[in-house]
Amino acid sequence: MPASNILANIRIVLIQTSHPGNIGSAARAMKTMGLSELYLVNPKSFPDEQAVTMSSNATDILDNATVVDTLQDALKDCHLVVGTSARHERSLAWDILEPRGCSEALVKQAQKGKVAVIFGRENSGLSNDELALCQHLVHIPTNTEYSSLNLASAVQIISYECRIASQLDVKVVEGEVEEVATADAMESYFKHLETAMVESAFLDPENPKHLMTRLRRLYGRAKVTPSELNILRGMLVAFQKKK
Amino acid sequence: MPASNILANIRIVLIQTSHPGNIGSAARAMKTMGLSELYLVNPKSFPDEQAVTMSSNATDILDNATVVDTLQDALKDCHLVVGTSARHERSLAWDILEPRGCSEALVKQAQKGKVAVIFGRENSGLSNDELALCQHLVHIPTNTEYSSLNLASAVQIISYECRIASQLDVKVVEGEVEEVATADAMESYFKHLETAMVESAFLDPENPKHLMTRLRRLYGRAKVTPSELNILRGMLVAFQKKK
Repeated sequence: MPASNILANIRIVLIQTSHPGNIGSAARAMKTMGLSELYLVNPKSFPDEQAVTMSSNATDILDNATVVDTLQDALKDCHLVVGTSARHERSLAWDILEPRGCSEALVKQAQKGKVAVIFGRENSGLSNDELALCQHLVHIPTNTEYSSLNLASAVQIISYECRIASQLDVKVVEGEVEEVATADAMESYFKHLETAMVESAFLDPENPKHLMTRLRRLYGRAKVTPSELNILRGMLVAFQKKK
Repeated sequence: MPASNILANIRIVLIQTSHPGNIGSAARAMKTMGLSELYLVNPKSFPDEQAVTMSSNATDILDNATVVDTLQDALKDCHLVVGTSARHERSLAWDILEPRGCSEALVKQAQKGKVAVIFGRENSGLSNDELALCQHLVHIPTNTEYSSLNLASAVQIISYECRIASQLDVKVVEGEVEEVATADAMESYFKHLETAMVESAFLDPENPKHLMTRLRRLYGRAKVTPSELNILRGMLVAFQKKK
């Protein structure tokens, strides 16, 4: 299943959002990561101009958002339901997951059908009745002294982790593999460098210390490309010619 | 080293931020993840009431922010410099990292000293001159059809990944950490190298092409140690003296 179809099956559910701007920011955050399905349970104001403004052209997500009266209505067709929690619900018998493990579980299940991640109210999170509808809880690790994560930031992090998880199988390698100069070409360069260093009296052939070894390591780490090697050799020739 | 000390060594650098509200949101995002060091290169307006409003009480980060005139000033004491890029700089020989691998590298190096992550302008990102100061680029994977990631959201994701990386099993993160020359020391070397190349007529100051940029990238990738830098500088002096 392509990553985009998996992400389309991951529903973001926002409960009783107070600030319509947050709905817009959440839509933007979702869309940057390829998520598209937004459910709003009893939003204070929606549709709302502020949501549009904050969505930064992710208006398709807002236009297609589904507004429902109860959380149950938002979850009917979902095969996995995860609630976000700012607290550690230690006293309760939930699996509390980290965003990474949680997103892997969501992506796995989303290959079969709809899954949902629930975000609670800006100030009070999810109620116990709402938590009871979740199979897992996810906790975004934050600074213990300052855990004031914005609603849209929480949506951003979970959406980001879902995107990453959806691409794990696809194994996208960003950028092309750099061509690296051959071992032979590098050997020629090192000989050339050694000659120039001896000529300039920087390297004493009677007492070479570990100079060449150290330079080999340095250039070895850099993984010099053929065109870079041309520059290095040209520069060396120029230094040698210098009167 | 405790995770909190590692995170304190990770500097966030924002270049010419247009909207002071974004500086506040970025400070909030940093603080939720335990980062604290903010540098601002030529912000349009700072301090600013909007930054305070959007920081949601992360005002200590704003109060302690350092405002500088040039990017170099923000990087002087940094041992690893990573630039964020919305584009794929395919044509150039940079290491382009995913946020996860990038954060592991940052956290590893931050055990020895300061490291920096640079975020460009809201609309135009980083200039080529600014990119030239980076050892790595990091690209946050986004929806190819909608990559409109808010500045603070980008800061949030990188800060989040740094927090996660800082808490990984010490075995993953620790291990041998090479000391790396500071950005300032590397700048001095690049100036020295440029002078020597001009003297030897290898570099035509009237037509420099991309020579210095390419050499910066090469040595940036290598992560030169202070003792290796001594060798490179000594060799250059010897080449220059050669009659």
